[in-house]
Amino acid sequence: MRLSPRDTVFFDLFAATAANVREGVGLLSEALDSAADRSAIAERLKEVEHHGDEHTHEIVRRVNSTFVTPFDREDIYRLSGGLDDVLDDVEAALDLMVLYRVGDLPSGVGDLVDVLDRAAELTAEAMTRLRSVDELSDYWIEVNRLENQADQTYRRLLATIFSGEYDALTVHKLKDVIDTMEAAVDGFETVANIVEQIAVKGS
Amino acid sequence: MRLSPRDTVFFDLFAATAANVREGVGLLSEALDSAADRSAIAERLKEVEHHGDEHTHEIVRRVNSTFVTPFDREDIYRLSGGLDDVLDDVEAALDLMVLYRVGDLPSGVGDLVDVLDRAAELTAEAMTRLRSVDELSDYWIEVNRLENQADQTYRRLLATIFSGEYDALTVHKLKDVIDTMEAAVDGFETVANIVEQIAVKGS
Amino acid sequence: MRLSPRDTVFFDLFAATAANVREGVGLLSEALDSAADRSAIAERLKEVEHHGDEHTHEIVRRVNSTFVTPFDREDIYRLSGGLDDVLDDVEAALDLMVLYRVGDLPSGVGDLVDVLDRAAELTAEAMTRLRSVDELSDYWIEVNRLENQADQTYRRLLATIFSGEYDALTVHKLKDVIDTMEAAVDGFETVANIVEQIAVKGS
Repeated sequence: MRLSPRDTVFFDLFAATAANVREGVGLLSEALDSAADRSAIAERLKEVEHHGDEHTHEIVRRVNSTFVTPFDREDIYRLSGGLDDVLDDVEAALDLMVLYRVGDLPSGVGDLVDVLDRAAELTAEAMTRLRSVDELSDYWIEVNRLENQADQTYRRLLATIFSGEYDALTVHKLKDVIDTMEAAVDGFETVANIVEQIAVKGS
Repeated sequence: MRLSPRDTVFFDLFAATAANVREGVGLLSEALDSAADRSAIAERLKEVEHHGDEHTHEIVRRVNSTFVTPFDREDIYRLSGGLDDVLDDVEAALDLMVLYRVGDLPSGVGDLVDVLDRAAELTAEAMTRLRSVDELSDYWIEVNRLENQADQTYRRLLATIFSGEYDALTVHKLKDVIDTMEAAVDGFETVANIVEQIAVKGS
Repeated sequence: MRLSPRDTVFFDLFAATAANVREGVGLLSEALDSAADRSAIAERLKEVEHHGDEHTHEIVRRVNSTFVTPFDREDIYRLSGGLDDVLDDVEAALDLMVLYRVGDLPSGVGDLVDVLDRAAELTAEAMTRLRSVDELSDYWIEVNRLENQADQTYRRLLATIFSGEYDALTVHKLKDVIDTMEAAVDGFETVANIVEQIAVKGS
């Protein structure tokens, strides 16, 4: 794939977007400690998300003003939309923790967020190597493995919160929070699948 | 953009579809009053939704039988599908109110439906001006602003219904209803974003 | 539509995928009996789902290595993705039944799964006749009818589980299960709509 300066801009924008997602996940991780000032962290996460929106708009603007793009236009939209969706879920999860005043979370929630941390790290790193998208198979295979691991953690968490240990209102709050975190994990898998499809097309 | 009579048909169909969505939102608004005959209103909403389906099928039929369309085929599908989704959510919200026999709703629900009313009005008006889609920026900016406003209202509502004032079963019912209304607001934003993307492409 | 051996492979893969979905629905149906060993059946369903994933990957691989495909590439992706989604929902529904230890289910759940059985049968049969996709209108019309029927059943079920007969925690568990089943029914309708769109394009 020959690279024009224009391509470079796209790759840099994706790297910046993914780095931003990783920063958001880091804030969610910080907020797990029930002693943390979750409202303040949620405010910082909102700023991070605004930066993400700016990246997305810039990508869309450039796709529409560029004749030749390094990948299919549609794939560029899907990739940037996919990264955007992950950050939306991450922000929504913290938002619910604040709104619901959930206090201490079951320990399994930490395991779920650890997976988010790892997936965010892998994704941020992969986005800096989109130039050689065909060499990213380690990335998408590992993210798919992480998603399966998160699924097991999620299911154990469901069994825990429905075990009778929590009252129905708390169950509802906790389930909303972990469902949103699980959606974020799925979002990372979606991004990885898009990258794989781009690689397959190019090969 | 030069207009053929064929284009005119598409524009008229979108205007009719959006007017239909607005009528549906009006019925939902009517049904907020716990003294209203919600089942009867739900029946009328079902009829409105059937009209919407007919418009959608007519649009799809014409896209497939037309060589030149005013916008990309894919965008026409997405726009008509987007309007269809909003009406489905509006109908589902009223449906749940009837099924759950929810009675009085927290006052915040009225604020949420007011946003739906305003978004429906703006969308119906914008759909009559698709001929000059590049002049609709006021529309999509305002709908995005309304979505943010609705999001704040929705989050306040969540805090209210989980405050302990309601029993767990009522919380579950109310949350299903407002989640569906929130989905309808998001649907209006999706439609506005599609219109913006069509405008950007054309420019 | 002239058929090459390559086309035949695609058609066979879709027939195999749909037969696999039908097998999965059969297992869900088996698991309705609260005396059944649901965990064991869930294990078997996981294997069925793995087979489905293999079919999907094979379809994607062939689409990408084939210059001429019997349908648009995008439609092949959507069709195989649509069948995949149905099986995911079927597996998730049984999964939740096991995780939540739901025991006896309201009788309406059986009606919902009967619709899934019938939709799976119709879909599996239709996928063996994709060669003459324009002759499948009976299939997509009937699946749409079944979806409306399932919707009525689903709504009656919601009224039942929220009637006060069940405690809030049980309501939450049952609603998760039937929501997932309802999503599977919608998934069959999505597949039928994709087939209809392919037929309309070809005509």
